[in-house]
Amino acid sequence: MKADRQRDIIVCEVGPRDGLQMIQQVLPTSVKLGWIAVEAAAGVPEIEVCSFVPPKLLPQFEDAAEVAAGALRHAGLTVTALVPNLKGAERAFASGVHKINFVLSASESHNRSNVRRSSAESLEDFRRIVELRNSRPEWRSIQLCGGISTAFGCTIEGAVAEDAVLKLAGKYVEYGADKLSIADTVGYANPAQVKRMFTRLRQQLGEIEMAGHFHDTRGLGLANVYAALEAGVRSFDATLGGLGGCPWAPGATGNIVIEDLVFLLESAGLNTGVDLDRLLEVRKIVRAALPDVPLHGALAKAGLPKGFGAHRKTANL
Amino acid sequence: MKADRQRDIIVCEVGPRDGLQMIQQVLPTSVKLGWIAVEAAAGVPEIEVCSFVPPKLLPQFEDAAEVAAGALRHAGLTVTALVPNLKGAERAFASGVHKINFVLSASESHNRSNVRRSSAESLEDFRRIVELRNSRPEWRSIQLCGGISTAFGCTIEGAVAEDAVLKLAGKYVEYGADKLSIADTVGYANPAQVKRMFTRLRQQLGEIEMAGHFHDTRGLGLANVYAALEAGVRSFDATLGGLGGCPWAPGATGNIVIEDLVFLLESAGLNTGVDLDRLLEVRKIVRAALPDVPLHGALAKAGLPKGFGAHRKTANL
Repeated sequence: MKADRQRDIIVCEVGPRDGLQMIQQVLPTSVKLGWIAVEAAAGVPEIEVCSFVPPKLLPQFEDAAEVAAGALRHAGLTVTALVPNLKGAERAFASGVHKINFVLSASESHNRSNVRRSSAESLEDFRRIVELRNSRPEWRSIQLCGGISTAFGCTIEGAVAEDAVLKLAGKYVEYGADKLSIADTVGYANPAQVKRMFTRLRQQLGEIEMAGHFHDTRGLGLANVYAALEAGVRSFDATLGGLGGCPWAPGATGNIVIEDLVFLLESAGLNTGVDLDRLLEVRKIVRAALPDVPLHGALAKAGLPKGFGAHRKTANL
Repeated sequence: MKADRQRDIIVCEVGPRDGLQMIQQVLPTSVKLGWIAVEAAAGVPEIEVCSFVPPKLLPQFEDAAEVAAGALRHAGLTVTALVPNLKGAERAFASGVHKINFVLSASESHNRSNVRRSSAESLEDFRRIVELRNSRPEWRSIQLCGGISTAFGCTIEGAVAEDAVLKLAGKYVEYGADKLSIADTVGYANPAQVKRMFTRLRQQLGEIEMAGHFHDTRGLGLANVYAALEAGVRSFDATLGGLGGCPWAPGATGNIVIEDLVFLLESAGLNTGVDLDRLLEVRKIVRAALPDVPLHGALAKAGLPKGFGAHRKTANL
């Protein structure tokens, strides 16, 4: 990892979680850990390594605790896990991860289909998770991130009211969230909407750290990143090769591609701490492990521009 | 065409020119005119229909005058042609097109390899084209657009100085250009650079109309569009299915995809006058005509969001 220069932006690889959860093939623990190791070595500062969901529901994450333990061996890497409820949080705390991403949906219908309860009930669970974290001194340093899925639209409900997102975000902060993650789970967001949403969140909530989680389903993922940057967002999720397509849109891309995200940021003069050449090499590992899953990414096809890196401009955002 | 509401943004289809110039297969005139007809009927307000280059160099454009004549039959459509020199301009004026896009490169090496002379010599040609246009009353209404290729970087030279672009733009305006088109010909631009460039151009040149021409070679095409929008640009080139890949980057995407561009703009509340469903239908014509050429586009794969159009917000740019 490049520790010599401070990072301007935190990019978080969510492939081992969001990229794998829709894939039938269960990756062996050793393969997941190999992927995490090379990507951490390429300078990626944070990886969402697993999901503490019931293994009966998603066999892909049966080895969550083992993956977390392996990832924690990489000095300097922030190891994050997704949790959908209090039970998952208990397992996550015990695993020693640095950060928990809790999720609920701004769309009630999506929340019910995802975790079989209302968004308000999910929020109550988050409150209990904060209490649990605060109950043990050794857990106090674990960061709790409140995630809001379908914040920019929902495949079931269509449009989602911005005020509903603002209300949920306010509750998260009231209940003790350290950070928020606002997600365009289904690729409905447009950049004007993204800028407006993060600007309103900032006005309402002040200085709390916010992350953007965008999908590229309709091609606007990186435009949405730039809009969020303009609104002051400094953390972004992405996946290697854009893993994580939506089961309702066959052939469509999923998460934004981390290689292209890092290219956007670095070419705009923003330091991510990531070695782009080494990051592109990680594709070989994932392609070998998942031969039937298409890997997306424009940079991997076109290559870096001539003289890239030599003429970096200072960011002007 | 939707004439009922004023367009906020002009999208220009450049596929019949930029999309076809690298393709070996020469499209019959009737096929080109069929494509132009259905895309004009879908509400696309401007189409660059041909290039007045020497037919010996590019047999694809041997029928330029005939295509221009056919396209001029569509009421309300702005018919544009590319011209690389004075001789091309003479043919274009005679054809009756509404607008001429003249091109030169900000990169001297690129200009030499493209038109075998210096950028300064190309500019002198532009000055003569303005004189020629002004010499006949019936040509006075023809718009002359000054294009600057490789404005954000060049595959031969690497980085291109912003000051060089500003200087060329200033000369264009001095010589009588009605409009400027700033092009990321090889997909090197990033959004911070795009916003800075158009902001500086606006500061230097005042209210002259400017268009953005972006390629999606490295995935940043639509992020660059949004950055240009933020800097006040209100015209954009694009191609159906992203036709127009670069011969030096096999498999890489070319121009930004017009379907995805219109989706970005319309979902951000900006009226383009284009019927997106009908625009997506145009892909069938192009796919049938060019079966071996890959068509790109995220929206075509994923489909429009649920309830799209019903909840449009007013633009907030």
